[in-house]
Amino acid sequence: MPEARPPIARSPIAYDQRALKVVLVSPRNPLNIGAAARAMSNFGFSELRLVNPYDVAFREARSAVKAQAVLDHAREFATVAEAVADCALVVGTTAIGHRILEHPMKRLELGGKLIARKLAAAPVALLFGSEKFGLANEDMSHCHWLMRIPSREEHASMNLGQAVAICLYEIIRNPAAARAMPDAKRPADAAHLERITEFLETILDRSGYVHARVEGSTRMKIRRLVRRLQLNAHDSEVWLGMLRQILWKLSPPK
Amino acid sequence: MPEARPPIARSPIAYDQRALKVVLVSPRNPLNIGAAARAMSNFGFSELRLVNPYDVAFREARSAVKAQAVLDHAREFATVAEAVADCALVVGTTAIGHRILEHPMKRLELGGKLIARKLAAAPVALLFGSEKFGLANEDMSHCHWLMRIPSREEHASMNLGQAVAICLYEIIRNPAAARAMPDAKRPADAAHLERITEFLETILDRSGYVHARVEGSTRMKIRRLVRRLQLNAHDSEVWLGMLRQILWKLSPPK
Repeated sequence: MPEARPPIARSPIAYDQRALKVVLVSPRNPLNIGAAARAMSNFGFSELRLVNPYDVAFREARSAVKAQAVLDHAREFATVAEAVADCALVVGTTAIGHRILEHPMKRLELGGKLIARKLAAAPVALLFGSEKFGLANEDMSHCHWLMRIPSREEHASMNLGQAVAICLYEIIRNPAAARAMPDAKRPADAAHLERITEFLETILDRSGYVHARVEGSTRMKIRRLVRRLQLNAHDSEVWLGMLRQILWKLSPPK
Repeated sequence: MPEARPPIARSPIAYDQRALKVVLVSPRNPLNIGAAARAMSNFGFSELRLVNPYDVAFREARSAVKAQAVLDHAREFATVAEAVADCALVVGTTAIGHRILEHPMKRLELGGKLIARKLAAAPVALLFGSEKFGLANEDMSHCHWLMRIPSREEHASMNLGQAVAICLYEIIRNPAAARAMPDAKRPADAAHLERITEFLETILDRSGYVHARVEGSTRMKIRRLVRRLQLNAHDSEVWLGMLRQILWKLSPPK
């Protein structure tokens, strides 16, 4: 997998989000179906498929907050084979890190990237098992590989709605956003910082904080202190205003 | 933020996971408190703090599956100020991308990385607001910056339990794992592939699939077909066994 482009320039992969089919196999809890649908809606995915859901659960899930569109559009299938028939890549999720050696296992960080790449070319099915038992071996045999959320071994089993949300987040995650510098506000210029230093020094002098004999070194200390504040331009104006007012108050009355 | 080490060599940042304080401000739904605790347990975080929780919710949450240790250990505070007092960095989460300009806003991909780095040196508080209203401006004023999960604008508001899970995942996420190649099984060697090709050709010949006059080009087609299977060593043995059996069955009786 050669990385020809330098990492800093890489943009997120473009694909039609409808290419991802989120497949819940035998889900039992309506809250979890609703939570899965809501996470899909949050991240822009629309294709929810249910294999053999507990009927009551599916009906109740239809009331999930703000995920109405995803749930109304959801399709039911009798078998995993039918639910994934149109997909070129089928990925199963599991909490088990080491037990199943029959299938290639990838951590989510890698698996999510591979799924996003594949989505640009063909439909992909992402399978989640039932809350209680996860995916059965029969379900997994339909998968090209398995994917594991890197939870800790002692408590690996995740809530279904949370697992769906985390997998979808990894798929839409934009690596470039992690490398980008945050939008910094325009920093204060040296002239403002020096005026703040002078005001502060005068105030400290009039307050009796500065002793005349160490005045020189104090100014330098204050100057460094003010620089370490890393003020932005706007905040430097605010501080100047406050210091000006304090100085006015401290001025000896005429 | 210079990246001195080459990205491929970077290992996850080492820190004591107890340094992260997950702070839920005015949570109302016991299921969400329980879900937050469960995600913390999944990812190895233990320090849950609740500011002004709805009492009934907190009591009910204590029954959350497998997150008992986190919930038993949770601490209650009357104010945000008290809940974050020992933290050197306070980060607020919000679904709103653009409304609040008073605070620096970072996307989760970047924010998570900055939090992980800070955790190596000092305690960090990660604040989540109530299910209905999110963090109040008063709560946010305690924050150094805000963090946003990159959900889509039309449906940005996430379920509290899912939001906590996704933020924690990003913090423990290992960038090196995304670059690692999956553990590939030992590929089949050319001798095995050639024997498979020969068996297959003989079988197709005896089955009447191969016509004598095009035999040469057929062998090459089959050879290429077999190479494209990208068989691993183990599977190549399995295929050879199956083909040998088929060939035996196809052999003309003596």
